Amino acid sequence: MCEANAYLCGEDGEREMVMESVDRLTVDGEVIRLVSIHGRQEALRARIRRLALLDHEILLERM
Amino acid sequence: MCEANAYLCGEDGEREMVMESVDRLTVDGEVIRLVSIHGRQEALRARIRRLALLDHEILLERM
Repeated sequence: MCEANAYLCGEDGEREMVMESVDRLTVDGEVIRLVSIHGRQEALRARIRRLALLDHEILLERM
Repeated sequence: MCEANAYLCGEDGEREMVMESVDRLTVDGEVIRLVSIHGRQEALRARIRRLALLDHEILLERM
């Protein structure tokens, strides 16, 4: 499966997982909407910093 | 493998593939940098509109 885990990254390099097994991500202005393969939904004010798909990682940062 | 194809989307819904088999994507201000699993690199002025990871899709739009 090709889902990825979404993490919020702090300026100090700390990571906090915000959602496991993300399938869909939509950028809606300053809001990022996540939907997992299990149908879980989450929305947060953030932007995408980096994707590393083979590592199953989506790195976000707060706006 | 969990790479995805990156497409640029026009306002008319048209899609143009900009890179196949993307592993890494980095957002650097208004520039998106893509690296494929084959080591191909590309940079373009765009933003992420949507990810659909199970469908292996990264949808971008021009800034």
